[in-house]
Amino acid sequence: MPITPPNLPFHFETIGLIHSPFTDKFGMPRQTGLLEGAEGWIELLPPWNRQEALQGLNGFSHLWVVFVFHQATRDPANWRPTVRPPRLGAKRQGVFATRSPYRPNPIGISLLTYHGWQYKAGKLCLRVGGLDLLDQTPVLDIKPYVPYADCRPEARGGFAEQAPQSDELPVKFSPLAEQQLNHAAIDYPNLDRLIRSTLRHNLRPAYFGHIQQRQAFGLKLYHFNIQWQLHADWIEVHSLIPPAQKPTP
Amino acid sequence: MPITPPNLPFHFETIGLIHSPFTDKFGMPRQTGLLEGAEGWIELLPPWNRQEALQGLNGFSHLWVVFVFHQATRDPANWRPTVRPPRLGAKRQGVFATRSPYRPNPIGISLLTYHGWQYKAGKLCLRVGGLDLLDQTPVLDIKPYVPYADCRPEARGGFAEQAPQSDELPVKFSPLAEQQLNHAAIDYPNLDRLIRSTLRHNLRPAYFGHIQQRQAFGLKLYHFNIQWQLHADWIEVHSLIPPAQKPTP
Repeated sequence: MPITPPNLPFHFETIGLIHSPFTDKFGMPRQTGLLEGAEGWIELLPPWNRQEALQGLNGFSHLWVVFVFHQATRDPANWRPTVRPPRLGAKRQGVFATRSPYRPNPIGISLLTYHGWQYKAGKLCLRVGGLDLLDQTPVLDIKPYVPYADCRPEARGGFAEQAPQSDELPVKFSPLAEQQLNHAAIDYPNLDRLIRSTLRHNLRPAYFGHIQQRQAFGLKLYHFNIQWQLHADWIEVHSLIPPAQKPTP
Repeated sequence: MPITPPNLPFHFETIGLIHSPFTDKFGMPRQTGLLEGAEGWIELLPPWNRQEALQGLNGFSHLWVVFVFHQATRDPANWRPTVRPPRLGAKRQGVFATRSPYRPNPIGISLLTYHGWQYKAGKLCLRVGGLDLLDQTPVLDIKPYVPYADCRPEARGGFAEQAPQSDELPVKFSPLAEQQLNHAAIDYPNLDRLIRSTLRHNLRPAYFGHIQQRQAFGLKLYHFNIQWQLHADWIEVHSLIPPAQKPTP
């Protein structure tokens, strides 16, 4: 007897929320594992916040997170079969040949490092690293990364064969920024590393070849608004405008 | 301004269907890439069946398929936080520490080898290998496998550290089965290899340690009902009952 697929569409529920330093699309890495200091949490939401559901997970070092690109949802009637991956400049690519957020179903998969779970303010949270997800991203599923099945060193990677290279421009902090960073470090010990790696990562020519030297820019990480500027061969961080109300990291 | 997640649940549409030899849950591998000859197709459904959506995909050797475990859907009110992975026998494991189909959202990810696309009877189809998916599985998304991001040889694999080992019992065909296989090979050239690898894969002690020697079993592959029996140190295939109406492979 042939199997008949169930009626469509499918309905899925949010089982968790991402807590990430990336509170704005600008500055976010385009792939997991590229940024040092991009650490955060997955908060499990009720009724899925059961400790038993994580039994055995601590034996795994990496997780798959299946999530919704909640800032990329479009009317499906307006879907486009091609997108422009940032690495290819103006060249369009078929959407199924990219990991672009703008897809028929705005579902993403992200491979994160896993560093154990704990309760934070009564909420069951998984500590994760290598984040490439926006803060408040809705999570549909968490699965272990199974190396013997998921790691295929023989695979060919098309236009994304090599990891993007950083320009490795030095990042320097102004005296004001240095002072603000020291103050922020009490609650955000990784902020220094995260600012440096985010700026370096985003200043690759393919992404920001068009930006003007000496023009001032803002970067949002957590609730900080970071003012920076590109010089000929270095990046200067001018200041960190802290949040009016300091949230829990 | 804090980002507010959109209202839940999310609705997703089926963009494709899997065409797989596994027409029945029994016999299906528990992970991708384990079975020789487990080849099939992803059929793109309208309006997603646009050739442009695949532009650039032929540079990639592997794909992620995001799919629905359509035979494992349950009322979410009845979800259980633990499951029994077949490799662990009776030991329960947290659902988020497994790839079990019985999950809060029955979404799976499967890593397949990709061998190009073509039109089959007017339908836009992607040829894939290493299938661990049931025939008619609804597909939500197709993404390229990006080796520099997705292959992490340093990852620890918990209870699934090693690939399951096959017992490598020899599989022999009766004269009747041999004759039927030769006849079937015109339309199903991989059937021999697929029967052998499926039987070996499923006769690992962890999965079928309880089966009786000399007891007769059936295995469904495509529309064939394959009769087989376990002897002391070999597996005998008695016969292949072919479909009443021969479908296109």
